[in-house]
Amino acid sequence: MNNNKTQTLKGFRDFLPETMAVRNYVKNLFIETFETFGFEPLETPALEYSSVLKGKYNNETDEKLGYFFKDNGDREIGLRYDLTVPTAKVLAIYGPQIPLPFKRYQIQPVWRADNTQKGRYREFIQCDIDTFGTNSPTTDAEIISIIYTATQKLNFKEFTIRINSRSVLLDLLAQSGIIENQNSALQSLDKFQKIGEEGVKKELINKDFTQAQIDSLFKYIKEAKADERLKAVFTAIKTFGVPEEFYVFDPTLVRGCDYYTGTIFETTVKEPKIGSIGGGGRYDKLIETLGGPDIPAVGYSFGLEPIIDCINELNLLPNLPKTKTKIMVANFGEKTLNKSLELTSLLRQNNVPTIFYPDSDKIGKQFKYASSKNIPFVALIGEDELIKNIVTIKNMSTSEQKTISQNEIVDFMLK
Amino acid sequence: MNNNKTQTLKGFRDFLPETMAVRNYVKNLFIETFETFGFEPLETPALEYSSVLKGKYNNETDEKLGYFFKDNGDREIGLRYDLTVPTAKVLAIYGPQIPLPFKRYQIQPVWRADNTQKGRYREFIQCDIDTFGTNSPTTDAEIISIIYTATQKLNFKEFTIRINSRSVLLDLLAQSGIIENQNSALQSLDKFQKIGEEGVKKELINKDFTQAQIDSLFKYIKEAKADERLKAVFTAIKTFGVPEEFYVFDPTLVRGCDYYTGTIFETTVKEPKIGSIGGGGRYDKLIETLGGPDIPAVGYSFGLEPIIDCINELNLLPNLPKTKTKIMVANFGEKTLNKSLELTSLLRQNNVPTIFYPDSDKIGKQFKYASSKNIPFVALIGEDELIKNIVTIKNMSTSEQKTISQNEIVDFMLK
Repeated sequence: MNNNKTQTLKGFRDFLPETMAVRNYVKNLFIETFETFGFEPLETPALEYSSVLKGKYNNETDEKLGYFFKDNGDREIGLRYDLTVPTAKVLAIYGPQIPLPFKRYQIQPVWRADNTQKGRYREFIQCDIDTFGTNSPTTDAEIISIIYTATQKLNFKEFTIRINSRSVLLDLLAQSGIIENQNSALQSLDKFQKIGEEGVKKELINKDFTQAQIDSLFKYIKEAKADERLKAVFTAIKTFGVPEEFYVFDPTLVRGCDYYTGTIFETTVKEPKIGSIGGGGRYDKLIETLGGPDIPAVGYSFGLEPIIDCINELNLLPNLPKTKTKIMVANFGEKTLNKSLELTSLLRQNNVPTIFYPDSDKIGKQFKYASSKNIPFVALIGEDELIKNIVTIKNMSTSEQKTISQNEIVDFMLK
Repeated sequence: MNNNKTQTLKGFRDFLPETMAVRNYVKNLFIETFETFGFEPLETPALEYSSVLKGKYNNETDEKLGYFFKDNGDREIGLRYDLTVPTAKVLAIYGPQIPLPFKRYQIQPVWRADNTQKGRYREFIQCDIDTFGTNSPTTDAEIISIIYTATQKLNFKEFTIRINSRSVLLDLLAQSGIIENQNSALQSLDKFQKIGEEGVKKELINKDFTQAQIDSLFKYIKEAKADERLKAVFTAIKTFGVPEEFYVFDPTLVRGCDYYTGTIFETTVKEPKIGSIGGGGRYDKLIETLGGPDIPAVGYSFGLEPIIDCINELNLLPNLPKTKTKIMVANFGEKTLNKSLELTSLLRQNNVPTIFYPDSDKIGKQFKYASSKNIPFVALIGEDELIKNIVTIKNMSTSEQKTISQNEIVDFMLK
């Protein structure tokens, strides 16, 4: 091994404690929100049979997206690249034993072998909510309500939830005389946000759709209205109390995955320029495709990484404590070691997060360490304190020192 | 794809909500304990360069243990099979920027392509704590204190932390005249708990160690004592307040990994028959091996899976609520839909975990669903309630019903 080459794979990241603090804040906020909406936790394996994963997005992109390989037993396996398909697999296997409707959340990493670029990683965490076993429009609307609730809690001010439905899209295509190669047409329309109307038109011409088809399509898009079912979704969204400025009917929204069958949604932000911070939709046939029972489903995936990028760039983070450690017990060497360890243990037994400085370094170095870790207090037991059964407490932000009896330290820290 | 074959890979598991509740209880208990001891969170990628992972355990078992493959860019990569090596890599890369001592915890899955058997999985979660940047014996002792604290919180009554040190082992070998093939001798001794003294002796004879060497080895093992450094560890363990019945000096303890250099420990339970529930030790040279600075390190890994197996088999679980959902709002169809959705939203805005039953099924079916999910209350707004601006609340465990005004429901649920 070439020791000079020790490095982390491109597109992958190591998270040190200060970065983890932000990640855990967002994750815990999602968990709390999801549970308030009645979703329960579920987890699935990182690895699945390739046959479970493949052919659910777009057949053409499977190999590009996925980490696929053969295991020691010559099985074709791969790392999951979303959480929807693995959970659909769970429903396909355990469906008959699970009381429906079933509402689950899942917060786990997924892997994509895609090219990396700013804000795109090869390992990233998705925070998914899905409801199985009902096709009620209220369930689709509930997703919008949870997006609104979570983004408000995260202090997001400007975002738009774009809403459309596969049935609206298929109607638009049919009206425009696009009967063949519908998926190809939708793949071009999917780029509307990125390349605009002219870009999409150019692509459709290159794909040999007729000028008449293309003109009709954009004419009908401009006149498009929500169909009956989508109207019911919008009514329920309003009833749930989501302000109208945060969501919009957008007939150009396509969403890539082949498995969507009904309502689709995507949340975008204007600033920073990262586009989508989450998306989802209704996929009523996926579980059947996987050999399971006929169970309708709708879900949404919050992208932890773009959301954290927003929080960092827009300074939306509340004042999180830099460390959970409340006090450091300093080290004055052999003579006072036992008393210092006892004090450390006493504090911990009373659930006061405590560090014992392990080496008898110069006290200046120990204070410097406590400062660098943002630990608010340092407890000192030198020989003088040992004899008098006292402890000196230094407040690291004010530099104030006070002396208390060793029995009082727990009360002092818990007050 | 053959739809009949949709299944989860052998050795891998899907965790449904009730299983997740136990897992989250244990995980959160660990996080709380780790933070009380001043450890901070860290995460690393699932995939690493093979060169980072390989050669850290036993060279011979790398291929057997690991999921190794080539990515699309022809890089040799693999899934991590412990958390120690990836974190040592982090220290090798970022070491100079990290204030030392550095105490981190890491709770993530690892993957091993090993044969599966009862209680052994190919994907399992490890809960690791490690302290970097000090070789103080108090740091080794702190590990024992945290094991004791966590296992007490988990209601474990019978367990033993066996403690030894690589230096004691190397002294024993030298005293016995075993100078060559020391690792091979240790690999046999490592099986002492499994195959006993006679088994180990037989294996050593087959490996061409002399009878004199073998007899000496077991003679010296019986007389073995902790050396000076290990004595300092034991003194600090006692000072931290760990009762002596829970730990023992065991000169036959080896621990498999090649990277250990000093103190080693392993925690075992008698019941159920799963053996080790965690292990660790000091590895002062690993970060240097990875091309990083000379940073001493000591750590321990709690095995989430064997610990959960113990909790389940010995009924150590506290009375966890079966669901976090507190109330279900029933569905009486079109006329009362909006009012029911408003009520649902009101409850959620006040952080009362609430499910809205999405379909206007017969009320008996809706009650049955609430029961199956262990939801304690059901709120009913039928046409009568709608007109009177009231809501009927059914207590699902007593079947009592009472009527309150819609404004009072939040107070009722929060009281």
